Amino acid sequence: MSDLTSAVRAGDLDSSAVLDLLGMLAYGELVAFDRMAADARLAPDLRRRAVLSEMAAREISNYRRLADRLVELGADPEGAMAPYVRAVSDYHEQTEPNDWLEGLTKAYVGDGIADDFTREVALVLAAPDRDLILDVLHDSRHADFAADELRAAIAVDPKVANRLSMWARRLVGEAISQSLRVAGERPSLGLLLAGQGTDFQALIKRLTTAHTARMGAVGLNN
Amino acid sequence: MSDLTSAVRAGDLDSSAVLDLLGMLAYGELVAFDRMAADARLAPDLRRRAVLSEMAAREISNYRRLADRLVELGADPEGAMAPYVRAVSDYHEQTEPNDWLEGLTKAYVGDGIADDFTREVALVLAAPDRDLILDVLHDSRHADFAADELRAAIAVDPKVANRLSMWARRLVGEAISQSLRVAGERPSLGLLLAGQGTDFQALIKRLTTAHTARMGAVGLNN
Repeated sequence: MSDLTSAVRAGDLDSSAVLDLLGMLAYGELVAFDRMAADARLAPDLRRRAVLSEMAAREISNYRRLADRLVELGADPEGAMAPYVRAVSDYHEQTEPNDWLEGLTKAYVGDGIADDFTREVALVLAAPDRDLILDVLHDSRHADFAADELRAAIAVDPKVANRLSMWARRLVGEAISQSLRVAGERPSLGLLLAGQGTDFQALIKRLTTAHTARMGAVGLNN
Repeated sequence: MSDLTSAVRAGDLDSSAVLDLLGMLAYGELVAFDRMAADARLAPDLRRRAVLSEMAAREISNYRRLADRLVELGADPEGAMAPYVRAVSDYHEQTEPNDWLEGLTKAYVGDGIADDFTREVALVLAAPDRDLILDVLHDSRHADFAADELRAAIAVDPKVANRLSMWARRLVGEAISQSLRVAGERPSLGLLLAGQGTDFQALIKRLTTAHTARMGAVGLNN
């Protein structure tokens, strides 16, 4: 299913794209669990540590739903995730948070963009995959917690905003570079969007506008 | 509530012991989540990594139930957990697994003993705490997964059994030493059991017998 030519020939580009998307999201959840669990150790107290640990746990229950759907579609979850291992690992290795606030910024900024992009792709899919994918997007409690913590930290020490703004730019840069790499290696998602008449410039503009608004909402500069 | 004399004087030794037990279990769950999430990285493939990650997620949902109950009882979860931070951290620092099988052995052996002990204490409590505590004990899927993996590894390479048996002895030794430290600092649980006429020698014998049976069940020597 992963070979473009045979997918197009077989006329099953859509289902290939669905497997690609589910595989990418599943691996993203597995890694997000792992990273968030590790970042929870950076928490300044046990209460905050527990909150981040619970967020991590939600990722792994989403992983299970995506993996189950892959099995239902006749795919092997491990195989479907494999093409994304390198890009996702590289992204996280290049963006290891040094403290609690960097970890929260990463969750806030990174999950925000990932969710926005995922929502755009999900909307061109049919049910039940569309609904499953919309359902595993991060709920707003998550972003709200991170935003509250970031706002509070910036209120106490405004200099923090500069440091975290720079950090966010690094996150976005690394995310773009890994996304382009995946898009080059796995064109099915891009072709699916193109086949639906997606205006890519407009898509990127929507993602950028939402990102800028998120940054501003917590006092960070884009 | 943590001061023995005042607790006895106030006649509320039982409720003090309940807070102690809930606090100890809550902190244990928080740390178990963290450790298991980290150990999942040692998994040889993504499927096994996901299984261990899901086990970790269960610990954190148990944490939430215990913390909620502490709040219901008028206690601050953070305060209730504080007395156990050092002993639990020291236990884990002294027993950091070097590979996937050591991690599984630790989960299998450590959780087994912890669950057996917790069950003994829970049985002398009244509902609803007794039921909550019995409910957050690890389900057998957990131990079954670890046992299957250990048995399979020993079947492939019988020499592994010696190494893991020695590792298990180290785990038990460290667990006993940290438990005695906690028992000395927080006598309420011991006094609760004593007040119920618990025969400590018989209790230790039951724990030891169950541990030996668990070791034998996967091919490890006590």
